[in-house]
Amino acid sequence: MTNDYSMTINDNQMTSLRKQLQHKIDLKTKPLGALGQLEKIALQLGMIQNTLAPELRKPAILVFAADHGLTDEGVSPYPKDVTWQMAMNFCTGGAAISVFCKQNDITLKVIDAGVDYDFPSGTPIIDAKVARGSRNMMLEPAMTAEECRQAMKQGAAFVRQEALAGCNTIGFGEMGIGNTSPSSLLMHRFLNLPIETCTGKGAGMEGEKLDHKTRVLKAVSKKYNPQTPEETLATFGGLEIAMMVGAILEAKKLDMVILIDGFIATAATLTAIQFEASVRENCLFCHASEEQGHQLMLDYLGAKPVLNLGMRLGEGSGAAVAYPVIKAAATFLNEMASFDEAGVSNKEENTEVQRS
Amino acid sequence: MTNDYSMTINDNQMTSLRKQLQHKIDLKTKPLGALGQLEKIALQLGMIQNTLAPELRKPAILVFAADHGLTDEGVSPYPKDVTWQMAMNFCTGGAAISVFCKQNDITLKVIDAGVDYDFPSGTPIIDAKVARGSRNMMLEPAMTAEECRQAMKQGAAFVRQEALAGCNTIGFGEMGIGNTSPSSLLMHRFLNLPIETCTGKGAGMEGEKLDHKTRVLKAVSKKYNPQTPEETLATFGGLEIAMMVGAILEAKKLDMVILIDGFIATAATLTAIQFEASVRENCLFCHASEEQGHQLMLDYLGAKPVLNLGMRLGEGSGAAVAYPVIKAAATFLNEMASFDEAGVSNKEENTEVQRS
Repeated sequence: MTNDYSMTINDNQMTSLRKQLQHKIDLKTKPLGALGQLEKIALQLGMIQNTLAPELRKPAILVFAADHGLTDEGVSPYPKDVTWQMAMNFCTGGAAISVFCKQNDITLKVIDAGVDYDFPSGTPIIDAKVARGSRNMMLEPAMTAEECRQAMKQGAAFVRQEALAGCNTIGFGEMGIGNTSPSSLLMHRFLNLPIETCTGKGAGMEGEKLDHKTRVLKAVSKKYNPQTPEETLATFGGLEIAMMVGAILEAKKLDMVILIDGFIATAATLTAIQFEASVRENCLFCHASEEQGHQLMLDYLGAKPVLNLGMRLGEGSGAAVAYPVIKAAATFLNEMASFDEAGVSNKEENTEVQRS
Repeated sequence: MTNDYSMTINDNQMTSLRKQLQHKIDLKTKPLGALGQLEKIALQLGMIQNTLAPELRKPAILVFAADHGLTDEGVSPYPKDVTWQMAMNFCTGGAAISVFCKQNDITLKVIDAGVDYDFPSGTPIIDAKVARGSRNMMLEPAMTAEECRQAMKQGAAFVRQEALAGCNTIGFGEMGIGNTSPSSLLMHRFLNLPIETCTGKGAGMEGEKLDHKTRVLKAVSKKYNPQTPEETLATFGGLEIAMMVGAILEAKKLDMVILIDGFIATAATLTAIQFEASVRENCLFCHASEEQGHQLMLDYLGAKPVLNLGMRLGEGSGAAVAYPVIKAAATFLNEMASFDEAGVSNKEENTEVQRS
């Protein structure tokens, strides 16, 4: 009974906050609804932070990198070495995610979740290597239960660390040659959709190559029948994906604004939601990826992406580019004047809004 | 002959620059095309600035404000006074355009193109009042030929002033109660589309009110038969729209990057294109407005907007919010490493790209 009672209180408070936020938005000096999706984002930011004046503080993007045993089956056009090479590129400032984070004052952390390479000491890559890549799913599950748990735990720890440093807005990116494949498998399992629907060209598999990738994923899917979200993630995921799932779950616990990038990050979100459905409330889906299947996941999640730029790069790049647009929602909510404050006449129909 | 010869040279140079830009984009450390529309924007920026390293310098948004005699016919739900009130709000920092410009370090200038109000001296609104509003088109053309010319000339002068101050990226906004009506009329005339198709709810005309607005615009359209772009603009436009047309034409002459906002700014662009078709090359269409008809103009112009946020506010607000996304295109082109520079392996298929 106590629990039920407090839930009611909480629900009422949330309904009241939602109304107050909407009221604040409606009284800004603009026609009702004229800022479109920015108004919805502003509302969501207020609800996440439980305030009428949400602020995005010390935004950070954590990029998790890992290798995938499944690349032995030829599911990516790029050699596996590109994972560590790109992780280095992130750190030295030459990658898309590096330059976009720099442009938008976003802290970038690059984390080795399971790269099959020994980074030289002194490299600014954070070592959280759980294994030297996930296993080849054609032969065995991608991770042991213990590896998967450990990756999730580490992801959570990195988020706590950012939160302690004052960050309340966190995005997640990934680097892992071959990692659209586990993402397609997770989507296939959690949304109950055919492999073909969930499989796209990734970093560039077209024609016969895409057919091959699809055949491999079908064969993998047939081999296993995991039951719980944990088992499904361990079987079909990857170390960077598991770390991201742990990170997303922790970010929700800490009431952070969660910036979700493209296909792989959305598959991780879909997975996190199997663990804890309320995660969805804190997620902003930053862009619609060109990768086949992404739009279906967004539809399932009821998410309208912030950007539609046809990007399909991963790394968290869509989150980094979308950040200033999301910030604009907080900006207008906090800084725009109301009709009263600005001494601007509202249209006749809205006078009751002003009074209520 | 000399002219023909130099045009050929110039065309060849442009083709070569386009190829070089595309090559530079393709060698960045990402799968081919993975940055989607950002890659197209980067290409356009390079072509506008005639360089492989385009830079957006001192971005500015000029907001032109004016009143419209047609509001006497009840085409807007807001009173005319809102034009001057909002212009003041822009200057005092309380409007959407003010807070978005501040967020993104964009210079904002508010220009009185023809507001029916005497701003107190000391108000930071730039006086370029051509008249106290356009005329009621139900009775006479919106502007005399001389008023229209004067407004265009002033718009051009403001752009030259920004360019002299080092700005190479300029956006245009507007404020004018009633100004979706002239925009719909210009669209109707230049695209040869029915008034109904070109007329939307503006700041909030729905149901019977929208029907009324449509009837008024139909009646106006019937009254006149202007032939040239100048006549059409003078007949159906508005002072802020004419000023914007002059500004757009001048910005093209000065090889500036032109940020086009929503419905009204796109109608002004459509008008400017009747004067000088090449204007289109320098325009970035910042967002898809919710205002009916905007998408049709974008389709006609072959433009894919940068943002799709369902905004319909005007003021240049879409341009201000889109600016950091557009900047991201220049950022990646200038700052990302190539595969060679970063020591990242390219996929086998692309090795010829690396060598060429």
